[in-house]
Amino acid sequence: MSAAQVFVTEMLGTMILLLLGCGVVANAILPGTKGSGGGWLLINFGWGLGVFAGVFVAFSSGAHINPAVTLGILASGAAEFGPGIAATAGNAVIYIAAQLVGAILGAALAWLAHKQHFDLEAPAATKLGVFSTGPEIRSYAWNLITEIVATFVLVFVILSFANWPGDLGPLAAALLVVGIGASLGGPTGYAINPARDLGPRIAHALLPIKGKGSSDWGYSWVPVVGPIIGGVLAGLLAPAVAFA
Amino acid sequence: MSAAQVFVTEMLGTMILLLLGCGVVANAILPGTKGSGGGWLLINFGWGLGVFAGVFVAFSSGAHINPAVTLGILASGAAEFGPGIAATAGNAVIYIAAQLVGAILGAALAWLAHKQHFDLEAPAATKLGVFSTGPEIRSYAWNLITEIVATFVLVFVILSFANWPGDLGPLAAALLVVGIGASLGGPTGYAINPARDLGPRIAHALLPIKGKGSSDWGYSWVPVVGPIIGGVLAGLLAPAVAFA
Amino acid sequence: MSAAQVFVTEMLGTMILLLLGCGVVANAILPGTKGSGGGWLLINFGWGLGVFAGVFVAFSSGAHINPAVTLGILASGAAEFGPGIAATAGNAVIYIAAQLVGAILGAALAWLAHKQHFDLEAPAATKLGVFSTGPEIRSYAWNLITEIVATFVLVFVILSFANWPGDLGPLAAALLVVGIGASLGGPTGYAINPARDLGPRIAHALLPIKGKGSSDWGYSWVPVVGPIIGGVLAGLLAPAVAFA
Amino acid sequence: MSAAQVFVTEMLGTMILLLLGCGVVANAILPGTKGSGGGWLLINFGWGLGVFAGVFVAFSSGAHINPAVTLGILASGAAEFGPGIAATAGNAVIYIAAQLVGAILGAALAWLAHKQHFDLEAPAATKLGVFSTGPEIRSYAWNLITEIVATFVLVFVILSFANWPGDLGPLAAALLVVGIGASLGGPTGYAINPARDLGPRIAHALLPIKGKGSSDWGYSWVPVVGPIIGGVLAGLLAPAVAFA
Repeated sequence: MSAAQVFVTEMLGTMILLLLGCGVVANAILPGTKGSGGGWLLINFGWGLGVFAGVFVAFSSGAHINPAVTLGILASGAAEFGPGIAATAGNAVIYIAAQLVGAILGAALAWLAHKQHFDLEAPAATKLGVFSTGPEIRSYAWNLITEIVATFVLVFVILSFANWPGDLGPLAAALLVVGIGASLGGPTGYAINPARDLGPRIAHALLPIKGKGSSDWGYSWVPVVGPIIGGVLAGLLAPAVAFA
Repeated sequence: MSAAQVFVTEMLGTMILLLLGCGVVANAILPGTKGSGGGWLLINFGWGLGVFAGVFVAFSSGAHINPAVTLGILASGAAEFGPGIAATAGNAVIYIAAQLVGAILGAALAWLAHKQHFDLEAPAATKLGVFSTGPEIRSYAWNLITEIVATFVLVFVILSFANWPGDLGPLAAALLVVGIGASLGGPTGYAINPARDLGPRIAHALLPIKGKGSSDWGYSWVPVVGPIIGGVLAGLLAPAVAFA
Repeated sequence: MSAAQVFVTEMLGTMILLLLGCGVVANAILPGTKGSGGGWLLINFGWGLGVFAGVFVAFSSGAHINPAVTLGILASGAAEFGPGIAATAGNAVIYIAAQLVGAILGAALAWLAHKQHFDLEAPAATKLGVFSTGPEIRSYAWNLITEIVATFVLVFVILSFANWPGDLGPLAAALLVVGIGASLGGPTGYAINPARDLGPRIAHALLPIKGKGSSDWGYSWVPVVGPIIGGVLAGLLAPAVAFA
Repeated sequence: MSAAQVFVTEMLGTMILLLLGCGVVANAILPGTKGSGGGWLLINFGWGLGVFAGVFVAFSSGAHINPAVTLGILASGAAEFGPGIAATAGNAVIYIAAQLVGAILGAALAWLAHKQHFDLEAPAATKLGVFSTGPEIRSYAWNLITEIVATFVLVFVILSFANWPGDLGPLAAALLVVGIGASLGGPTGYAINPARDLGPRIAHALLPIKGKGSSDWGYSWVPVVGPIIGGVLAGLLAPAVAFA
């Protein structure tokens, strides 16, 4: 697979993830949609099944669709990112760039699909909430810890998938993300993926969203740095405790 | 498989899909049922598991049970619609006719199963809502865009299932539809399938439903044209980005 | 497998099904439980996962755990009920007797596990509702139709599982039952299984349940006869449309 | 696998289980989280997917992550706890010690991830409820019965997984736990695992949780003894009824 093919594949997979992920938040929190007020489990399934769809789309490149996964695999010392794709820092840059572009595109498509509901009156924070995560109680330190813990679980369990000789493929990652959202998403909204948060935030800043307010750049580093730390920690620990 | 067998198989699969799909909407929105007010996630699971059941029933013909899938596969240039069934325009007509007939039958059965609840007082729009989709904010252009985006995801991801060497069979399509409903169904009710919308609308027009109002033919072209455009776009793009 | 072993296996599988099935209704509708008011989707998952567990337990005998399935398979002309177990009327009697006994035991265990909540004040109809189904709008004819349609779907799709060369095992039946409950359970509570309804009704009549009222024997034939008709119709139709 | 490796593996798997399990309760019942008031099905999925993740992590040691499973397997007379690990009382001690340590760690991490929400005003019983189970209606005898029944189902069905020649791996255990929670968790909160209850109770006693009250040691023996009885009963019965 060429670098361009890796880029396109990761970009499309992440685009689908963000389209469905931002989509379910739009459905659940914007006014006037059929799923308005649908609740947390609805949001968890929307994101989890966004992963499900995105992993199918990006399967050929290893379906990272998340820089924390890419960096976690790099930290783990694994030889490959995907079949025939060396796990190198240079390739990691390609993955991460593709993920970020895909995330911007996916968020923009989710906005397009819900355009009329964005045009209704709603708090600016609600409209930003469709795109990017935000903490319920702002505290950079504690928010960072939550994101580190949640992303550690994500990457550590993904790296543990190989312990089982069977294979559920995209379903395993999907259900894991449903679970992390249900269990650890309450305080910060579980970015657990730097591209998932930064890409849509860029889209939010660029798109002509009616009644939009700040893109909250002050918080934006937390859902980037936290997931990177959590993913790298998982990548370092996982090989040390794989005794199979 | 003969043309008649393809017809019967697709018809039955689509019938089961619509019976469960219209059924869950009846349960969730008609008065007096045990699931009344059950919410969006209940509806999403009902439709997704309708796909699950329908795909098992129609597996031998490739289990399209959706004209957007049939046309998407045709557009993709694939050789076959199902095992030993050539992907030709002529066969597409058979598939689509069967899907439409099956959808009418399934909607009629769902009405029969909920007959007494249709006999209760309820707004005419609610009763139509069991059969066909309708937008929360009517705008043919934006509603069309939402249906195009959602159906693009459906067909593009279905065509990406082959990227993964494993196989979840009917479960993959089922969960994908749960996810699309959760994430992209909020504005228009996710027809994402021309037969799913037109068939029940015909049933609504024909059946002696108590207190029924208009079948809203003015909107009826949107959930037909949108899914066809989305499905064909996906069919054209998918082979171009399958690098495995 | 001896007749006694078939009996024990089907009995235990049906016992587990009813323990979890009546259990989730107790949790959702009795006062004071942690899941009180948990809603329809909770009930659907509880029954579906009761099937999941019961099918594992009874896998060796074919895991019918439902007389409508046993009679549907008999009607289909299949050679075997399970590996090495001939599909004969005589064996059907063994299966059905075991299912009925298991259903009584499972309902009794569910009562035991929720004993203190049964001891609280609640309408007698609510307490019966943990055991057996009852229609929202009583009409023997229409209630029968709903049970026939729902059980037809159950048995027809189960007989269609073999269309797909893969195998999800107990998960396929579980998800099918979640879907049927979500979509077709609204009017009558989806018995779709004569043992599931009659067994617990017998348990209700026999057990010293505080504040219990009538076991509603007037309705009791509907969830027995409807599922049998639906299952047999599916058994007759399925082989005629299996063209694979 | 060495004893130390078994210890680390079971400890990490149980840690992940408790992190996600206590996490979902924190999200659902603490004030101010995004999932606050999310309901019973959310909690059931959180615990079930905690099992999902934990089983992947601990797969190499057999993924008991529950003393009731370890003791149930021991009682069943099986030769091994996991591949190459003899099922002996001595090894059971290693498993159970590891599970208890892992449970303490997981609960502590869940507290850390939700630290700011623990710092808000909430009843002391709510804060304890994130860690350990408690009955809705206190009665040691009846609470014990509920825990015995629920854990019997857990271990009996796990021991029945082998009846099906296929393998869903961690998904089977996950869905089983979703089902048991939905169906039998209403009266006592389904410990069904002595480490799941005792470990977090110890963590609750040790951690500097703001506004914490009693750790309710009076009840603490019920969710230890009940699951052990239920698991051992299942371990004794299962081999006697496995006729495959």
